[in-house]
Amino acid sequence: MSLAIGVDIGGTKTAIGLIEADGSVVRSIVAPTPSRDSEALFATVHAGIEQMMGDDDVTAVGVGVAGLVNESGNTVVFAPHLAWRGEDVAGRLQTLTGLPVEVDNDVAATAWAEFTFGAGQGADPLLVVTVGTGLGGGIVIDGHLMRGATGASGEVGHVPFVPHGHLCGCGAHGCWEQYASGSALTRAAREFVSSESSEAAALREACNGDIDQLVGSMVTDLAVAGDHASIRIIADVGHALGEGLAGVVAILDPARIVVGGGAAQAGDLLLDPARAALAARLVGAAYRVLPPIVEAACGEQAAMIGAAELARQRFSTT
Amino acid sequence: MSLAIGVDIGGTKTAIGLIEADGSVVRSIVAPTPSRDSEALFATVHAGIEQMMGDDDVTAVGVGVAGLVNESGNTVVFAPHLAWRGEDVAGRLQTLTGLPVEVDNDVAATAWAEFTFGAGQGADPLLVVTVGTGLGGGIVIDGHLMRGATGASGEVGHVPFVPHGHLCGCGAHGCWEQYASGSALTRAAREFVSSESSEAAALREACNGDIDQLVGSMVTDLAVAGDHASIRIIADVGHALGEGLAGVVAILDPARIVVGGGAAQAGDLLLDPARAALAARLVGAAYRVLPPIVEAACGEQAAMIGAAELARQRFSTT
Repeated sequence: MSLAIGVDIGGTKTAIGLIEADGSVVRSIVAPTPSRDSEALFATVHAGIEQMMGDDDVTAVGVGVAGLVNESGNTVVFAPHLAWRGEDVAGRLQTLTGLPVEVDNDVAATAWAEFTFGAGQGADPLLVVTVGTGLGGGIVIDGHLMRGATGASGEVGHVPFVPHGHLCGCGAHGCWEQYASGSALTRAAREFVSSESSEAAALREACNGDIDQLVGSMVTDLAVAGDHASIRIIADVGHALGEGLAGVVAILDPARIVVGGGAAQAGDLLLDPARAALAARLVGAAYRVLPPIVEAACGEQAAMIGAAELARQRFSTT
Repeated sequence: MSLAIGVDIGGTKTAIGLIEADGSVVRSIVAPTPSRDSEALFATVHAGIEQMMGDDDVTAVGVGVAGLVNESGNTVVFAPHLAWRGEDVAGRLQTLTGLPVEVDNDVAATAWAEFTFGAGQGADPLLVVTVGTGLGGGIVIDGHLMRGATGASGEVGHVPFVPHGHLCGCGAHGCWEQYASGSALTRAAREFVSSESSEAAALREACNGDIDQLVGSMVTDLAVAGDHASIRIIADVGHALGEGLAGVVAILDPARIVVGGGAAQAGDLLLDPARAALAARLVGAAYRVLPPIVEAACGEQAAMIGAAELARQRFSTT
């Protein structure tokens, strides 16, 4: 049985696991990410890989990073939450571990996990979006992960959505992720709590009246529990998700759309409004089969599992 | 030498030609399109094919249609300017001519011509947009025309661009093509002529003061001749083109963007503002190589040539 190591480096935590060829996790650990120190991050990842390997025979290491990775899958060009800039992460980790290493964008790795083991199986093309702090995307076409000319494909969150709209972390105004993400959820909930509305009572209580403490998961939890204000806020975000998806679907015409990320915990409270907005907004909707919008199946470990599988497939000698 | 027939069916004219394997046109004709009569349209296309074949040995027939074509390339699902609805055009023409027939969207065929013979050679992925009455798109990935799950990929003109914006022919509001197309050019020029501005003198003269007679090509011609108002109107459309391209590039990460269609006659007067807007708006622009935006090379016959080549490749036995 061919084993691979998967590494998922986020801004705050790094997950490292030993993964079987069927996508199952043999063992895994999570460590804090030394996000501002390049050398410390290499040391953390290296130690984690050695620990996960143990005495097992491992084929390759796959690394998923929240950032821009070059098209050949070795260099982290830019990662907004990490110190790496133009860093040959694959080369460095290969020297440290003696194993072949591939690096991918974390959402691309998530898309590959969903395509190979999860809710995206058999879909061609497949679009995977992750609705978390931001809005990420990954695309699989003809059975291959789409990387684009420079490795930057799938950055759906930065499609222009509202002219002169909210300032985005990328420096532009009105990006889609400012309206369809966990951050959009948080912004709307904080605004609502700041109002005098009695409808916001449950949200106000959840954060003890301190809107800085209010986060997206509170809104999701309250919505699932039946709080009307929270349900409406999530529906607004779902609507924006579906409107933007109409643009991506017009371009890609995917067979299926898989939605993951923290906000997807709201399930159909998020996805039903998204489905309705897609159906209302997509060009030629009356003449075509709409792509189903479904929940992701691989969970929080998707990027780690997908990164491992990408590396296993690339470096398998069989 | 393998020959194919190419057919480009537009709302007003149908071009039919005999095309060599190197993309050169042996002979071609243009006939009016009987757009409201399905049977008359089949008769026109059939007669044109027979005329173009002559005594030559033809491999296949490729048909480009402005409309939605199914993913297997035989049925016209919906064409806004034609009477065909769910029509098995390939099957019908095959019966009439005895030749194998493939049907494609006309912009997809244009993209294939630019990829194979024109300004898109060697680019992977390649994005082709046609800025005409509307805004069309075609995508080539890994050397293959991208058709999507239902044959509807590449409909870039209907990406949501301005919330609650201009009503589009597709029934939705604020589609990108309402701001980046020849129609957008015409709308802006008519508004400007309707104003009392003396800056609009040249445009006013071009249409003899009748704004209903004002069309995009007049604006383009005046701009090329140096009329400041026309240059500004084209620059605004170019800016909208570049802003929207920032979204498509974020998703696809193409190696090159080829711009064709009538408005591309304005050359750099349209493309320089588009390049500036793309550079200003694209996510991570500081960390990546921007895709060059270049003019199309295959001209008005691109869809006919591309449709012929797609059919020739599909049905070639060698």
